[in-house]
Amino acid sequence: MNEPVVVRNVEQPPAEVVAALEKFGVTTVHEAQGRCGLLASYMRPIFPGATIAGPAVTVSLPPGDNLMIHVAVEVCCAGNILVVAPTSPCTDGYFGELLATSLRAHGVQGLVIDAGCRDIRPLTEMKFPVWSRAISSQGTVKSTLGSVNIPVVCAGALVEAGDVIVADDDGVVVVRRTVAREVAAAAEQRVRKEDATRERLARGELGLDIYGLRKKIAELGLKYI
Amino acid sequence: MNEPVVVRNVEQPPAEVVAALEKFGVTTVHEAQGRCGLLASYMRPIFPGATIAGPAVTVSLPPGDNLMIHVAVEVCCAGNILVVAPTSPCTDGYFGELLATSLRAHGVQGLVIDAGCRDIRPLTEMKFPVWSRAISSQGTVKSTLGSVNIPVVCAGALVEAGDVIVADDDGVVVVRRTVAREVAAAAEQRVRKEDATRERLARGELGLDIYGLRKKIAELGLKYI
Amino acid sequence: MNEPVVVRNVEQPPAEVVAALEKFGVTTVHEAQGRCGLLASYMRPIFPGATIAGPAVTVSLPPGDNLMIHVAVEVCCAGNILVVAPTSPCTDGYFGELLATSLRAHGVQGLVIDAGCRDIRPLTEMKFPVWSRAISSQGTVKSTLGSVNIPVVCAGALVEAGDVIVADDDGVVVVRRTVAREVAAAAEQRVRKEDATRERLARGELGLDIYGLRKKIAELGLKYI
Amino acid sequence: MNEPVVVRNVEQPPAEVVAALEKFGVTTVHEAQGRCGLLASYMRPIFPGATIAGPAVTVSLPPGDNLMIHVAVEVCCAGNILVVAPTSPCTDGYFGELLATSLRAHGVQGLVIDAGCRDIRPLTEMKFPVWSRAISSQGTVKSTLGSVNIPVVCAGALVEAGDVIVADDDGVVVVRRTVAREVAAAAEQRVRKEDATRERLARGELGLDIYGLRKKIAELGLKYI
Amino acid sequence: MNEPVVVRNVEQPPAEVVAALEKFGVTTVHEAQGRCGLLASYMRPIFPGATIAGPAVTVSLPPGDNLMIHVAVEVCCAGNILVVAPTSPCTDGYFGELLATSLRAHGVQGLVIDAGCRDIRPLTEMKFPVWSRAISSQGTVKSTLGSVNIPVVCAGALVEAGDVIVADDDGVVVVRRTVAREVAAAAEQRVRKEDATRERLARGELGLDIYGLRKKIAELGLKYI
Amino acid sequence: MNEPVVVRNVEQPPAEVVAALEKFGVTTVHEAQGRCGLLASYMRPIFPGATIAGPAVTVSLPPGDNLMIHVAVEVCCAGNILVVAPTSPCTDGYFGELLATSLRAHGVQGLVIDAGCRDIRPLTEMKFPVWSRAISSQGTVKSTLGSVNIPVVCAGALVEAGDVIVADDDGVVVVRRTVAREVAAAAEQRVRKEDATRERLARGELGLDIYGLRKKIAELGLKYI
Repeated sequence: MNEPVVVRNVEQPPAEVVAALEKFGVTTVHEAQGRCGLLASYMRPIFPGATIAGPAVTVSLPPGDNLMIHVAVEVCCAGNILVVAPTSPCTDGYFGELLATSLRAHGVQGLVIDAGCRDIRPLTEMKFPVWSRAISSQGTVKSTLGSVNIPVVCAGALVEAGDVIVADDDGVVVVRRTVAREVAAAAEQRVRKEDATRERLARGELGLDIYGLRKKIAELGLKYI
Repeated sequence: MNEPVVVRNVEQPPAEVVAALEKFGVTTVHEAQGRCGLLASYMRPIFPGATIAGPAVTVSLPPGDNLMIHVAVEVCCAGNILVVAPTSPCTDGYFGELLATSLRAHGVQGLVIDAGCRDIRPLTEMKFPVWSRAISSQGTVKSTLGSVNIPVVCAGALVEAGDVIVADDDGVVVVRRTVAREVAAAAEQRVRKEDATRERLARGELGLDIYGLRKKIAELGLKYI
Repeated sequence: MNEPVVVRNVEQPPAEVVAALEKFGVTTVHEAQGRCGLLASYMRPIFPGATIAGPAVTVSLPPGDNLMIHVAVEVCCAGNILVVAPTSPCTDGYFGELLATSLRAHGVQGLVIDAGCRDIRPLTEMKFPVWSRAISSQGTVKSTLGSVNIPVVCAGALVEAGDVIVADDDGVVVVRRTVAREVAAAAEQRVRKEDATRERLARGELGLDIYGLRKKIAELGLKYI
Repeated sequence: MNEPVVVRNVEQPPAEVVAALEKFGVTTVHEAQGRCGLLASYMRPIFPGATIAGPAVTVSLPPGDNLMIHVAVEVCCAGNILVVAPTSPCTDGYFGELLATSLRAHGVQGLVIDAGCRDIRPLTEMKFPVWSRAISSQGTVKSTLGSVNIPVVCAGALVEAGDVIVADDDGVVVVRRTVAREVAAAAEQRVRKEDATRERLARGELGLDIYGLRKKIAELGLKYI
Repeated sequence: MNEPVVVRNVEQPPAEVVAALEKFGVTTVHEAQGRCGLLASYMRPIFPGATIAGPAVTVSLPPGDNLMIHVAVEVCCAGNILVVAPTSPCTDGYFGELLATSLRAHGVQGLVIDAGCRDIRPLTEMKFPVWSRAISSQGTVKSTLGSVNIPVVCAGALVEAGDVIVADDDGVVVVRRTVAREVAAAAEQRVRKEDATRERLARGELGLDIYGLRKKIAELGLKYI
Repeated sequence: MNEPVVVRNVEQPPAEVVAALEKFGVTTVHEAQGRCGLLASYMRPIFPGATIAGPAVTVSLPPGDNLMIHVAVEVCCAGNILVVAPTSPCTDGYFGELLATSLRAHGVQGLVIDAGCRDIRPLTEMKFPVWSRAISSQGTVKSTLGSVNIPVVCAGALVEAGDVIVADDDGVVVVRRTVAREVAAAAEQRVRKEDATRERLARGELGLDIYGLRKKIAELGLKYI
């Protein structure tokens, strides 16, 4: 039913699709896939300005115990993003500079953790990006098993191993591996359309006219007084 | 009772009063008007360092629906600040770079929204200041009416159209249009008084002496041991 | 039972011990003393990059009333850190630039307050570091007594006058004065050990091997699939 | 600008209108007036089963200081409901059995307080209904002025003296005095309509048919698979 | 990618398995399936004492819009439990007595909603059980589509149509349909074992002895002083 | 520094003092000792109507691990109250019916836990009172040591072994063992005084007159309009 396992050999999404999604960023990707997959807004970057995209390695672990992060490092590939979800709410500092050093040595791009992170200054200096729900020095033990690369719910979103994670200053979004190419294409289209809209808005045209909303608000009965 | 309306022709406060309030900033203005009008402390700027002041255009709208922001753009004047309040708690990203482009084209200075904002990096680059309760990519629909320029409660403070909004790194405060001149004058006095106090404190004098508190703490019965 | 008092003549920890703890920072110190003494993770610096360590001057005061901060200034020594704890939850802005000017004139290094702080920009410009639970302009009165240098619970941690406070971008930790030297020594050892570990991790060695965890996870029954 | 005042001689709504609103309860009244006026959902009754309606006596007061509740008692009329809003967030126990005894002696029906309440058991036994954001024994002082019968924002809703408060197990809603009769009439209509709808739903008819939603969901493009 | 759909013909778990899970209750079921599947602890019953178990009909819908609950009623079978998850955080009162009347007419046992519920008194009187994150009268519109019987994340747990929901005073847990029989068997075993343990504990035996923990705490180095 | 220990032979407060404090209840005791010692208001009873008082047995333990509760049972005496504080924020269900059975067999009166509790219905039926911050079925492990009968901070209040805990529907307060007799005497006085005040208030006299506040509000400058 729920025994601790590590799943190896996760199918990875195509590199060019991942690269495209990184270019578009969280908000465009979220819109392009039909406004789903967004992690809760309490997930914030520990420093501003980073954008990453990559296939998820997922970790499910107990509160206050980071044993499974050490287990996960071994199954990470270059380009991966670690996604860590405790089995109950926890703000402990599961992760710091030493683990970042280890992950980087194995090519991992960054961390998304529905818990706490510590060593903020060293992580900022080494430019290792982390999105977390808290910043906390609270140390953890290494006593109890969890699982790696099983489906997890992280900050309210379902993440499966090999799904594409996109993270930037707007937050974090997950894209199912199987639709990633389709989402990238939709994002491309959306960006083009927005470029045209932006130009018109910058000239002073109104969204009411560009999006054809005047008829709608009249029908709905809006009154001007 | 509560029908959707857009109020045009809002009376605006004098420009020189608005300029004075901007100069003093949120904390001084809040103190000068008797410690009222402050929005809840969860309202934070999306980037540090901006200070703005201007007359409010208010928007009341449903959770997850930004139709009325598009409606509001049309009734904004140069110098206005948009104040957006959902009718129930919501963190959705009602606002991003495209709407900021539109507002800027109409001279609007910034946004105060008791909900979420997105496109943080583009907004930061274009230096369009926003104070919000959350950062979230979560998209919104354009389906249901609300009202523009009716009195709203935004982050716990009553805001009426034409009231002066002052916002900086300390938060957001609202000043009734009808007392704005009086508040600006009181702020001016407060600043002068504080300048004198600051100098004395910097020399090592104690607040206990400057504010004449020694007698009070003795009467109240404070013991030193 | 609980009468308002000010305790003078607090025993101070040795300066070289304080200096050592500052060098190690919050996370290392917290680990070195057995993972205790950490303040709640909602205590955040008002600007990034500051690290301070120093003996605590504690203040217990009512919600919305900063009279006792003025009382406390008089009993501060050079190097002290002010630790302020309201008797019930409060986010008011007890503290701003004028009080910082006063504290600095008496050699105080910074403030830790389980409530609100204001004047963020001036405090940032004068580089006076503050860790607080909120940023709020909300003014306070000077009407009711509290106590100075009694034991307080601040953000969930017990702090006694003369305890060493360490604060940086990771948060705030308190070290009992009586064990401060011992903690500094343990931190020194920890740092040395971590330096060696970091080097191995950077070369790609796994924590599983460095920390000898493979046997444990096998015994606990972890399965690879 | 914001000086402490007590406003006497508040205009009261007609008694029969208040009685009608009490009969309909919070949810129906909230709907009948166009889905506005609801206080935040954290306002909960201290015991279940009470419903009250009456004209508001409003109190604005500082955190941790209940002096103004004592002032307010004197200006209460029979049937009034006391509405208490601190000037900044506070959970202190401003109110208990003694104040309830006093209010009851003056005919006040109940209390709505955006802060804490205490003496839960005695209040339950004497059936004095209170809606509060917290239950807390934390005592308050009597040191600082506030105001009575000025407009206040209580739990996110604007309340003016003489407005009708309706409170039951669903929460608390405020009805402007000037539209109270109109709202009561709309509520009456709504109840009649709901009685008919309830009967049809109980027989197994679908809301989709009763509310004519099938055409809408088809137009919006809902697919059944 | 994320188009609004209604999935009909959901496979249902065996009735006797559902009945068994109801008998064991939330805590035992949660333990029996390896401590997973629990919804967040903010999900509370609107009245105490109800226990239900049944196959989930899932609803994903926008904030402040209950159109899809009306759509869902039509695809409910007798014994089902409705599980409603907004696409972003919302406390609005999506559900009240009329919808409960409708659901009951179609045999639905109860509701689990990661949002608000209203009409608490009528729902309590008709004994229609609801687990919700909030109680709120806030009305919703019927404007925007969502989906029925797609996988949803509700209060942090993944729920698929046909999964078994168990809810009682301890909260809400979800059991995958495919392992429900296995979980029921494990729960049965657990209850038997606990019955034996309870008897020993009631006689004063210690958990330290019953669970064989003395050796462990000695090895871990616990000191008695 | 912070090694796991169990302290035996805790000095207990006099039984008649404990009995007196139980009679007065939380709010009166909190006031009588100078408005200190109150636990945070999020600590709520799992069922209404219980009042208990007794000497604390304190437990400090990791998040998600209840090993030390089992250790603590052995050092409990008849009349004790167990006070459990995790080392970082946690809502897991550390405690249920089996542990309550064990505690009751050793004469323990109840539990105060700054975390979660489960088995709400069985605990209610056996009338074992618990004050907790959450209700959660989430199971815990038995892997890591903590300490028993060391000073802990529980829900924001310092509790030492042998201190008197008083808990009722208003919450939880702690009284230092060394001042318990003095506090009980002060509470007795307070109750007598309140009895007289209650009678006067019930007759319609005003607190303004009984507490002599009219002069104060005049001096502070309150205006009636």
